[in-house]
Parts: sequence; structure tokens; C-alpha cells
Amino acid sequence: MSRLIVFKNKPKIISTATVCGKKEGSGNLGNYVDEIVADEYFGEESFEFAERKMLQSTIKKVIEKAGYKEDDIGVYIGGDLLDQIISSSFAAREFAFPFLGVYTACSTMGESMLIGALLADGGYLKSALCATCSHFSTAERQYRFPLEQGTTRPAQSQWTVTGAGANLISLANEGISITSALIGKVVDYGVTDANNMGAAMAPAAADSIRDFFVVSGKTPDDYDLILTGDLGTLGSRILKDLVKKTGFNIDNNHVDCGELIYNIMEDEYQGGSGAGCSAVVFNSYVYQMMMAKKYRKILFVPTGALLSTLSTQQGESIPGIANVIELQI
Amino acid sequence: MSRLIVFKNKPKIISTATVCGKKEGSGNLGNYVDEIVADEYFGEESFEFAERKMLQSTIKKVIEKAGYKEDDIGVYIGGDLLDQIISSSFAAREFAFPFLGVYTACSTMGESMLIGALLADGGYLKSALCATCSHFSTAERQYRFPLEQGTTRPAQSQWTVTGAGANLISLANEGISITSALIGKVVDYGVTDANNMGAAMAPAAADSIRDFFVVSGKTPDDYDLILTGDLGTLGSRILKDLVKKTGFNIDNNHVDCGELIYNIMEDEYQGGSGAGCSAVVFNSYVYQMMMAKKYRKILFVPTGALLSTLSTQQGESIPGIANVIELQI
Repeated sequence: MSRLIVFKNKPKIISTATVCGKKEGSGNLGNYVDEIVADEYFGEESFEFAERKMLQSTIKKVIEKAGYKEDDIGVYIGGDLLDQIISSSFAAREFAFPFLGVYTACSTMGESMLIGALLADGGYLKSALCATCSHFSTAERQYRFPLEQGTTRPAQSQWTVTGAGANLISLANEGISITSALIGKVVDYGVTDANNMGAAMAPAAADSIRDFFVVSGKTPDDYDLILTGDLGTLGSRILKDLVKKTGFNIDNNHVDCGELIYNIMEDEYQGGSGAGCSAVVFNSYVYQMMMAKKYRKILFVPTGALLSTLSTQQGESIPGIANVIELQI
Repeated sequence: MSRLIVFKNKPKIISTATVCGKKEGSGNLGNYVDEIVADEYFGEESFEFAERKMLQSTIKKVIEKAGYKEDDIGVYIGGDLLDQIISSSFAAREFAFPFLGVYTACSTMGESMLIGALLADGGYLKSALCATCSHFSTAERQYRFPLEQGTTRPAQSQWTVTGAGANLISLANEGISITSALIGKVVDYGVTDANNMGAAMAPAAADSIRDFFVVSGKTPDDYDLILTGDLGTLGSRILKDLVKKTGFNIDNNHVDCGELIYNIMEDEYQGGSGAGCSAVVFNSYVYQMMMAKKYRKILFVPTGALLSTLSTQQGESIPGIANVIELQI
């Protein structure tokens, strides 16, 4: 049996919602985001509480925008970068619907949508709410250094997006269809630099994109956009090269969410990253462009780096993963 | 639409495998486990590497026992207690099949089986391998204190199981059927003692069990066994009381995996816990008893405590979750 998961009933994305920080809001996509929060604490006592509140606020919005009530939500599927995905599970505590915790780092939005589409497609549950988030300040202090230390960022680094994105998947007549998907393998090219996530994740993205074309019989030309998660500028260039070596060429229709989210400024170096990066870009700008039929067929390929502080301390390299979601309107 | 997920094609568990540590192997279920590893380092340099190796070994065994090859595996679904589920994702790196990372703490085996059953039931993939693990020494130093500190354990504490369990789900004629499932909600009764997991998780288990009976129209008498994940002795008593208050009585057919795994000895206090607890007990003893038709119909209810070190440090209580999987032969 093929690795391609085909959704026979074409479940639809019936609404999306996004909330982001001030820096993200002043970037290229600010006009497409539902709410921009100027205060990085979001009125809370810690960055972690702020991240959670941002996620909760996004979940409320996506339900409201669909004209749904809490009771209409069959399940909330999500995860985040914090240890034990506490942003997601503590956010879920505030709602009366069931929760499936998932984790493939910054590829979590893709994994959530894949499972959500399964549940809707098979008629198992009425609807699936997919949501994820990240926060620059919680990610920095967990994965790298406390902000107070003022560590210099190397040129290959990316900037973790402060933002949350959500969508609601259900069987419906109108909306963007999720037509097929491919679950990624864990791929490791031996990159050990925790500041160079793009290079660590690009091989996994190349692997999944190549596999998708091979098993589906499709080609890059079949898509208006091949949108990766958070490879950033350097990772995006590596990806194009790696895909080319497999016999496919995505130069003309590939862009990375990390390249889109910020204005080109010096301090983000390679662009955005984090579970919130693809979640915000896809569920704001890209969703709206699809609804306006500027893009009709896209491959959404969120990418994840599966490291932890401990794995790095114990000398491990950084494995990557990428899920492929095929969408059309 | 109901919260009950009904698997129309009754996907089957076609094989299981378990590996555990010396302490677990000398407990009640030692004779039912595939491999007992005397060395808590499993020949590796760190406890974390040992945990991962134990998981990999279990994954290899479950494939071999089914007469399958790596190519026959549609997806590996799993997670574990370590930050960023590194045991699972690094284990997945060694295999050529796709990976879905999931996390609901010690309820992870249940979540994995639920998603695995979905993928098999809907004919989306040929097979789903579900596996999880825990290790006493990695969990202690991550969640509580370094072992070298020799901290005294309080009477309400449990002992994290060193062990891994796996099963393989596919559409087949023979084997134990997964007939339905219910995804748990995040439930928090305000318990703040990170040594009292049983009390933190019991309300979530009671909530899911009650909801299952209500939405399915079944009663406790319909089951030979209602098997919770790792509430331990104290948590198990709390659960029975809480369920009784909802109008159902599970006194006669409930047992907890944490109560079963160890001999009754002083130093484990309330019994076993950890993602490996229900994974080892279900996939060894309970699976074999079902295959021998000593139990024909069971509810498997793995339970999870969704805390992190950071959530505890920031003053949070401990939310719980429990998924319900209905099985029969």
C-alpha cells in the first residue's frame, strides 16, 4: 500500500484564526492576521503564560469565526515547543472538548491537520480544531540562552515567531479541501548546530517532497505554491538544491513561511522559525489568498527539528521531519 | 455527533512486544514480557540512550513477531516522557517508516492506538505501529531530583516503570479488535503535589469512563476488565469513588496497570507509573490473557499527568487526561 493518505471526502478548512506579536504584526503579513498583541507578556506574569493565552485566544477566535460553539468541536489537536507541550495541554484545560496532544516540533501544524483531516474524512467526529503556537522568549530560554544574558546571535540563526494559528476542519461543501497527505520520516544529515535549524530540517523536507511526488505521480508544476514551514532563507536554498538532486525542480513555486513573515531586517538573519511560524503564515495570508483563488492548489510542508536541550548536551545531531498536506480550492 | 469514535472495520492488534528492566521483570508480569534487561544502562552511556535502545528493541520485536518487514509498516506512532519526546523521535530515526509524534504523558499508548486504529480502519495505511516507553532514571532526574541526591520518596509516590511496549494494528481477520474509542478531555482538580500522580489523574479517568458509558450506552458489566494506566493503588481507590458518584460501579472489574506490575514491596509505595507502565502491562499480560480468551472484552484507559518541571515551578496544578480504547476478541 502506498504511503499517500488520500482523503476521499475532501474535508474542508471551514475557518482559520491567527494572533501574533508586535514584531510579526509589523512584518509582511500584519494585515492578514486577526490580532496583533503589542505586549509580549500579553498581560500575564510570564512568557509561558503569555504563549498559552495567545493560543487560547486563537482557539476562541477560530470557533467564533466558523459560527460554531464549543460543543461543536469534536477534538482539539495540537502541540508546541515547550517541554511536555504545556502551552497546548494547559490551553485545552480551559475548554470542554477532547484533546489530542501531538509533537513534531515546528511541523506540529502539519501533523495536527493530517490527523484532523483523518477524523473528519472518515466521519469519526464532526470537526477537528488544529492549533499551535510559539513565543520567541519562551523558546530562547528553553532551547538556547536566557534573554537576560544578551548572547550574540550567529548569522545562520532564525527568529522564533511569537504567534499562534488555528484552523477548523470539517466535512462541508465550501472551503479549502484537504485532498491528500504524506507523513514524514525522521531524517538526520548530522547537523549539530542548534542555531542552524534550516540546514537540519531541509533534508527532511526534501525527502518528504520527493516521496510525495513519487507516490502521488504529481509534479511541482501541479502546484501554485510549495510552502515549507520554517527553513528560513538559508534552509530554503538548501532545500531547492536537495530537491533538484532528486530530479524535481521547485525553484519557481517554492517559498518558505520563515522567509515571508518578517520584513528583511538584519536581526532576524535567516527569517522566522517556530511552531507558530507556519501556523500564522498558513492560517492568515496563505488561507486568504486561497479563498480569493489567487492560489488554487498548494502543498503545505511544515518542517520540524526534533532536538531537545538534553539531546544536544549528550552530543546528538538534529533530526528533522516534514509532513506534506495537499490543499486545493 | 457523538464523542464516541466507532471503528466500523474493527482493526486488529496483530502483534505486541515488550521489554522491561530487572525490577519490572521480577514483578508479577515477568513471565509475560519478551525481554528483561538486567543492566539499567542497556550497555549505553546514559539512561536516556538506554531508554531509546529499549524502545528500538521493542519496535524491532513487534515487527518480527508479526512476520512483517520494515516496508510493511505504514507509520510509527509514539511519544514518551522526555522533553521533546526524544526517545521516540530518535528511535524513529533508525527506521525507514514515517513517524507521528504524540504526547499525552502516560496516556500516550492510548492516544497512539486510537490514531493507529483510525489509520487502519479507514484503509488509509496498511498498518500502524504504536510504541511508547519510560525509564525510572530518566524520569526521576527530569521531573523530580537527581538520583545521586538520594531524596526520600513520600508515601503517595509511584515508581516509574523502566520498560517499553508496542503493538501493531492492521485490518486482519484474526486478533484482538479495537472496536471504539473516546478521546479524553483535560481535567484538573487542582492537585499540586508532583509526587501524587494518582490523585491528579483519577478525575480525568473517571470523567472519560463516565463519558464512555453515557455516549456508548454500555455499562461496567459489559466488560471483563476496566484497565486504567498508572493511577497506582491510591489513585485507583480515588477513581472507584469518583466513578461511583457518577452512578456507575466499577469496583468488581477495575484494576490499574500500576497495581499489577510490581510485587507488593515497600519502596514502590503506590505501584508503577510512567508511559511504559500501561504499555508493558497491556502488551504483555493483558494481551496474552485476551488471546487466551480469559478476558474477552476490556476497556483500556491509559492515564496521563500533563505537568512539566516548568509548569510546577510556575505554580500550576497538574491536569490529567485519559483516553478510552474498547477492545474485544
